[in-house]
Amino acid sequence: MTGLFPEFRYGGDYNPEQWPEEVWDDDVRLMRGAAVTTATVGVFSWARLEPRPGEFDFGWLDRVLAKLDAGGIRVMMATATASPPAWLAVRYPETLPVDERGVRLGFGSRQQYSPNSSVYREHASRLVRAIAERYRGHPAIEAWHVNNELGCHVVHSYDPESVAAFRAWLETRYGTIDELNRAWGTAFWSQRYDSFAEVDAPRAMPSFTNPTHSLDWRRFGSWSLLELYLMERDILREVAPGLPITTNLMGFFPGADYWEWAPELDFISDDAYPDPTDPDAYVTLAAQRDLTRSLGGGRPWLLMEQSPSAVNWRDRNARKQPGQHRAHSFNAVARGADGILHFQWRQAAAGAEKFHAAMVPHGGEHTRIHREARELGAELAELSATDVLGAAVPARVAIVFDWESWWALAQQAVPTRIDYPAVVLEWYAALLRRGVTVDFTRAGADHAGYDIVIAPALQVASRADLDGLAAVADRGAQLVVGYQTGILDRDLHAYLGGYLGGEGSALQHALGVSVEEFAPLAAGQTAVLDDGTTVTDWQEVVQVADAEVVARFATGPVTGGPAITRHGSAWYVATQPDSARLDALIDQILVAAGVDASFPAPVSGVETVVRGSTRFVINHSPDARTVEVAGQQVDLDSFGVARLTA
Amino acid sequence: MTGLFPEFRYGGDYNPEQWPEEVWDDDVRLMRGAAVTTATVGVFSWARLEPRPGEFDFGWLDRVLAKLDAGGIRVMMATATASPPAWLAVRYPETLPVDERGVRLGFGSRQQYSPNSSVYREHASRLVRAIAERYRGHPAIEAWHVNNELGCHVVHSYDPESVAAFRAWLETRYGTIDELNRAWGTAFWSQRYDSFAEVDAPRAMPSFTNPTHSLDWRRFGSWSLLELYLMERDILREVAPGLPITTNLMGFFPGADYWEWAPELDFISDDAYPDPTDPDAYVTLAAQRDLTRSLGGGRPWLLMEQSPSAVNWRDRNARKQPGQHRAHSFNAVARGADGILHFQWRQAAAGAEKFHAAMVPHGGEHTRIHREARELGAELAELSATDVLGAAVPARVAIVFDWESWWALAQQAVPTRIDYPAVVLEWYAALLRRGVTVDFTRAGADHAGYDIVIAPALQVASRADLDGLAAVADRGAQLVVGYQTGILDRDLHAYLGGYLGGEGSALQHALGVSVEEFAPLAAGQTAVLDDGTTVTDWQEVVQVADAEVVARFATGPVTGGPAITRHGSAWYVATQPDSARLDALIDQILVAAGVDASFPAPVSGVETVVRGSTRFVINHSPDARTVEVAGQQVDLDSFGVARLTA
Amino acid sequence: MTGLFPEFRYGGDYNPEQWPEEVWDDDVRLMRGAAVTTATVGVFSWARLEPRPGEFDFGWLDRVLAKLDAGGIRVMMATATASPPAWLAVRYPETLPVDERGVRLGFGSRQQYSPNSSVYREHASRLVRAIAERYRGHPAIEAWHVNNELGCHVVHSYDPESVAAFRAWLETRYGTIDELNRAWGTAFWSQRYDSFAEVDAPRAMPSFTNPTHSLDWRRFGSWSLLELYLMERDILREVAPGLPITTNLMGFFPGADYWEWAPELDFISDDAYPDPTDPDAYVTLAAQRDLTRSLGGGRPWLLMEQSPSAVNWRDRNARKQPGQHRAHSFNAVARGADGILHFQWRQAAAGAEKFHAAMVPHGGEHTRIHREARELGAELAELSATDVLGAAVPARVAIVFDWESWWALAQQAVPTRIDYPAVVLEWYAALLRRGVTVDFTRAGADHAGYDIVIAPALQVASRADLDGLAAVADRGAQLVVGYQTGILDRDLHAYLGGYLGGEGSALQHALGVSVEEFAPLAAGQTAVLDDGTTVTDWQEVVQVADAEVVARFATGPVTGGPAITRHGSAWYVATQPDSARLDALIDQILVAAGVDASFPAPVSGVETVVRGSTRFVINHSPDARTVEVAGQQVDLDSFGVARLTA
Repeated sequence: MTGLFPEFRYGGDYNPEQWPEEVWDDDVRLMRGAAVTTATVGVFSWARLEPRPGEFDFGWLDRVLAKLDAGGIRVMMATATASPPAWLAVRYPETLPVDERGVRLGFGSRQQYSPNSSVYREHASRLVRAIAERYRGHPAIEAWHVNNELGCHVVHSYDPESVAAFRAWLETRYGTIDELNRAWGTAFWSQRYDSFAEVDAPRAMPSFTNPTHSLDWRRFGSWSLLELYLMERDILREVAPGLPITTNLMGFFPGADYWEWAPELDFISDDAYPDPTDPDAYVTLAAQRDLTRSLGGGRPWLLMEQSPSAVNWRDRNARKQPGQHRAHSFNAVARGADGILHFQWRQAAAGAEKFHAAMVPHGGEHTRIHREARELGAELAELSATDVLGAAVPARVAIVFDWESWWALAQQAVPTRIDYPAVVLEWYAALLRRGVTVDFTRAGADHAGYDIVIAPALQVASRADLDGLAAVADRGAQLVVGYQTGILDRDLHAYLGGYLGGEGSALQHALGVSVEEFAPLAAGQTAVLDDGTTVTDWQEVVQVADAEVVARFATGPVTGGPAITRHGSAWYVATQPDSARLDALIDQILVAAGVDASFPAPVSGVETVVRGSTRFVINHSPDARTVEVAGQQVDLDSFGVARLTA
Repeated sequence: MTGLFPEFRYGGDYNPEQWPEEVWDDDVRLMRGAAVTTATVGVFSWARLEPRPGEFDFGWLDRVLAKLDAGGIRVMMATATASPPAWLAVRYPETLPVDERGVRLGFGSRQQYSPNSSVYREHASRLVRAIAERYRGHPAIEAWHVNNELGCHVVHSYDPESVAAFRAWLETRYGTIDELNRAWGTAFWSQRYDSFAEVDAPRAMPSFTNPTHSLDWRRFGSWSLLELYLMERDILREVAPGLPITTNLMGFFPGADYWEWAPELDFISDDAYPDPTDPDAYVTLAAQRDLTRSLGGGRPWLLMEQSPSAVNWRDRNARKQPGQHRAHSFNAVARGADGILHFQWRQAAAGAEKFHAAMVPHGGEHTRIHREARELGAELAELSATDVLGAAVPARVAIVFDWESWWALAQQAVPTRIDYPAVVLEWYAALLRRGVTVDFTRAGADHAGYDIVIAPALQVASRADLDGLAAVADRGAQLVVGYQTGILDRDLHAYLGGYLGGEGSALQHALGVSVEEFAPLAAGQTAVLDDGTTVTDWQEVVQVADAEVVARFATGPVTGGPAITRHGSAWYVATQPDSARLDALIDQILVAAGVDASFPAPVSGVETVVRGSTRFVINHSPDARTVEVAGQQVDLDSFGVARLTA
Repeated sequence: MTGLFPEFRYGGDYNPEQWPEEVWDDDVRLMRGAAVTTATVGVFSWARLEPRPGEFDFGWLDRVLAKLDAGGIRVMMATATASPPAWLAVRYPETLPVDERGVRLGFGSRQQYSPNSSVYREHASRLVRAIAERYRGHPAIEAWHVNNELGCHVVHSYDPESVAAFRAWLETRYGTIDELNRAWGTAFWSQRYDSFAEVDAPRAMPSFTNPTHSLDWRRFGSWSLLELYLMERDILREVAPGLPITTNLMGFFPGADYWEWAPELDFISDDAYPDPTDPDAYVTLAAQRDLTRSLGGGRPWLLMEQSPSAVNWRDRNARKQPGQHRAHSFNAVARGADGILHFQWRQAAAGAEKFHAAMVPHGGEHTRIHREARELGAELAELSATDVLGAAVPARVAIVFDWESWWALAQQAVPTRIDYPAVVLEWYAALLRRGVTVDFTRAGADHAGYDIVIAPALQVASRADLDGLAAVADRGAQLVVGYQTGILDRDLHAYLGGYLGGEGSALQHALGVSVEEFAPLAAGQTAVLDDGTTVTDWQEVVQVADAEVVARFATGPVTGGPAITRHGSAWYVATQPDSARLDALIDQILVAAGVDASFPAPVSGVETVVRGSTRFVINHSPDARTVEVAGQQVDLDSFGVARLTA
């Protein structure tokens, strides 16, 4: 595997248009001092590049690129389509997004466009073409950055043009209105459609929306945003071929099914903003890195945005403590990043993000934040000489992550509130506590390379998806299935006869169980297993056909019923165990799979992962720590990072 | 009194259009196995019956009815107007309801019509007429079921046609605009109207709405929904006379004043969905049954809908535990139901209610839920041979329940948040704990037959209503008046001079007290009476003219003031006592009235009630219980039901 | 200094149009019995005075005024523009306000007009002119009362006319669109405008609004409301010159910058509604009085509205306890009020405020509330003979209160949630606990007369404002600067280089410190100083150039860093200390300033203040208290008021 770039990338979003030109030279001087390799330029420059429709002003950007080039700084060239100018809103109010209550959103923040607006698309295309024509072959540019965080504020618009696009998308998906009626189950509640023209967006309505209608709206939203990316990508490939193209993803983002997107990106890039005050934020962060790597099929990726310290959009925005940002950065590198960029280079003095930290803060260069930025740059430059750059991150464990199950579980009128990413992360966290590296996989993926495959709350799955899981157990690898898996098919129709794919399914056979009834617990209610550990949120009535009952419910509505079962290498977990119980279960499964854990016992606050021939051990707590890792004792300072030979 | 039907009705909503025809025969087979007598058909069939405007398709329904008839299953024939088809929304968007912020709600759930839409009414009428013409005299049908849960999602629409209907309704009510101005007190805040044409719906506005305006909007909403019922009923009576007609009510439903509705129904039917995890849900459930019976003047009624286990619309939907549904069902039978139907027969595989339990669940017939359904069917069939069927439920205690007081107390700009049904249920619960059966009565009703009459928080009342209460005490029966009674007349004008109907009112004389000032307690604040018990929510300054002070406030803003007074058989309660104090007070009142309690001391979780010559004792707790009832010791299993000779 | 009036004013809003004329004579009789001097008439009379457009009916008001005049009652004549009649809404729906989501609010409450509506302004002007022409020179009238609580429900409307007015206001403010682009920092997020015509109101939008856009919208809102006042005032001055004109303010009201308004009012009047159940409400109340006095430059003012007991608009509306209203009233008199009026004279029987207490309650004249009203009237009449009337309230301490900092701190995307008035009140409360009288001052005011000047959270300030603060310390007076001061200029651009006005500012020099980083604490998180006291909400990294570190952070993200510093007479407080620490700090500062505290140690629940030659000592607690005040021991009853010689 080769690296994304010849050396680690380091730098950030650079918005020189916010500053007078005399600051630009100082920027290049400071970038060089901080070993910055890369600036992302132009993300929010549309109004400056095209101050009036069709009237372009590239002169200032020419000068910016020349200065950067002269300073040896490479450029991620953005397409500037993320935030259209005022004139688009004023001249074409139909481009503004409309919410589900019919309110047309106004101009004055960013991303104020309907993803399905043909007028927006036309103007965005013209802009991208103009930029590509102007800067193709520019020596400073080494990649294209399409739009920005597509859908972060607006996934859907409920305007007429979007509804028309939705209808066309449905017609492509279903072919006939009869097939849509079947898939959506419109015999229920008198919802039958006579033609696609009768279908509307699932706007505000008196009661629960048709679930498949809502799911298709989500699918359509993801597809619409991807279409925006493809539109720009295709122009760039046509006009300025030869450079890789990406758009910055947002990890566990509910607005788009990134499994659909990932194949279209030349490399994966990602934005991540952990909460500095949350001691468990590193778990989610590590998972986001592993998801990002998995989206790219294991190839190196780019951390496009992170903050060197505080953000500005939480209710209370804590700073990162000294060293904490370095720990976050190596968390990315260790998990496959070949570059570490930031939002942003120089902290804005005005505007809605002026309180968001930057590599050059309001206080200037003689500040802790800038000193740490310089040190990190130097350290990354030094690391470029190792085999970490471009190396893979091996994993023997897979966790299935499925956007459609997320969307279905988040609907109204479901058995209980299930926070899908949180349920998935419980499993991830238990493996992380043992230092076991995880890949995320798509439902229906080929799981042949994995020794352990875990499918938590995979509520929505095709029979083929579920058969694929059964096959994991059939070949002797460990299969772990969590509650609320295999309940609904991809049209959201229930599998009849015991769920898990329905009566007589391969998955029921593999697990040796079926599910008769759900018995969700009340919010805050706990129950106890016969081993004394605590469970929350979920119980159910499991019928055992052929399985060992590993644990039973000792309290709660189905006292005496099976809670955890095992049939050969196939495990079924019918509840939400506490972390101690989960640790014990993971231990059992690791042993059964012959997978070695890096930590001999669960560790919190410290992670370890191997990339290339380097083992990273990272302390995410403010206290010094000593841990045993793969047989070695490692001492770590506050937020310390150790690099061992793997 | 004769029964509603020759035997107990048992069964549920049946939606065969959601399933292929091959399932229908299996349905009849299973229904017969479960002793099902009754299927409610067609509730959500409009789009299937009339797939395009004016184009009817009855063939499938003919076949369904034939199969049911052949199987001996009787039919509640629904009019299918509850959920109009997509074509109505698309062709006539003016039929869609508009919320108070002007948002027109969309198609895709159910009940998406403005109750005042003439186009909806025209199409609904045509449909009802077509169904009535098609199926009049059909041997399987034994009753008509109009619409479904009228107003459960949409009571009001703020569209122009609804506003016009509101103006017409106001003109009918008030005759002249001067009279409206007087009633609404429009001299306040410069709200005078010059004509009815100037009056709008109480849509979103800058500050507090005129209270009488809001109250009239509520009255109008209830009247509009009732008009929908009457429209259908009159068509049915005209086209297909001879069968009883009902619509399913929803107990303590805030959207409609069911006292106005009840005389128009040939028999009362009701839907009830208690929360299985709430140990006190049986109290509200029992009260709902008693209200339903009281609406029908004591005649038997039909439980039209309940769930055999979980519902799908709470945040977390617990199942009913084994036996719990039987306890709920006998709670209905004991309190006057002559039939026990469900939503629904077969659990949907798709749509917004697929996670709602049914008599045939996703797991099929070999499941706990279906087994219990069969057992309950058999038990009801056996009970048809007793004198319970059709029998009355005698009560010597009445509690006044008044929708207009509910609506007034729920307004903005009132002395304090008072949850009217909760306050009423405190009294009801204390009587239930002693096994004393209660009727609910309308303010202004003839209370001659009752030994105890309780009026809690009857904030809104006419002088005649209050005089009627005073008359209860005058004839020596026990009258119990709670705080916030007789504060406002039916125009919501305050009674001046001590409230309780105002200076010198019969009620002030009967009670021997008047009220000078309100002194609501803060949320969560408690105070203590001179007997050491605790009170919450409310205190006030009571002036005693001629009454014994039973208890005084020992703490709180009116320390030393009267809290409970008694003048002969007239009691006044100027606060919210805790349940122990309420139990003691009820005990005193029962003794004074000579009413025997079935339980010698308060009992929680177990109820008893007499119907015909049978005394039912029902355990609503998961633990086995032994209780003394009317001098007998009764052992009850978990959720057990005992039937004794009364 | 002379008094506002020849004697203390006493009375309230009088709405005779809500009552039949026979009540009016009784009103005058009762007013005389209660020593009422003043009735505010006509506040909500528009619909009665002008029942149809241009058709005036003054007859009833003539009779009211004649009766009052005959009874010796003086009149505050209102202009009746606060609540336009139904006909204005019906004929000119464009006068109705539109919210930020585009919803046009309806008629049926009050204040349903867009402040920028030209049609509203035209009709309001005609009305004011008609009233002024009718009643100029009327012997009963002694002042004009314009509108009512301007903006209490509607500060902004998002309708086209308001947007046009906003654009015109911006053009006046900025001159050129380039200057607006500079001030707003529109280079950020591609927000550049090409003309003022492109600028919209900051209506609902996808993400964070441009902060300066939002701030200007606030400024514009305040200016629009002031324009309404000026429009009426100018008509009154033209048509009916000679009498003082006011409008009733609302203390710490977020909708308007009263510093801009105050110079336009002939005298300041204020409405105040403390929560009777909040034991600390007297602190806010005292601060509101001091703000009101400060707005008028120290001159006497009028309490235009207060409730004699409960209000009706809280969730739970407690009554005032016996004596409590007298304590509130003397709190006003002691702090500069020359009159004590109420909302309202007679409690309404109908309408949205019928549960709001009044001087003549529903219970009539033989009630506690009316008895206390009579006693208070007599007491005030007696006080008119003292030198309290018209006297000043001396203060040696100033606290800067800045509406623009409030507005900026309340925006989205800020470092942390800061409740600006609450932060200011922490300082105020500490001084109140010592019996030290405070003036509030405007940022940039001449502080020459003060020995102590405190600037808490003055986030937004011009360099001149900050230089003015530095000058306080330069002349040796005590300057106390709180965290988040001098962060942004008046365009909301950050001061670079250590905040506090930026690198090398006079304020940095005066304090001897600069601020490198913010480190807000999480909600509920506490930290400890090296003296063991607790701090919350805020920490930061302070760089000390030349200052004594008075206290350091002993825990939290910047452990070891300076928390409180002192450089000569300039103090900097980099955190939110608890009240004990604040008391100790205030003690140190008072000593340093040579300001004597009236209480030798902090006292809660009792206040003292000197006006004229009278020292007031007021007990705001229900318990009797004994306190030492200025060397004297004072015994106070429950809610007692003592008047000593100062």
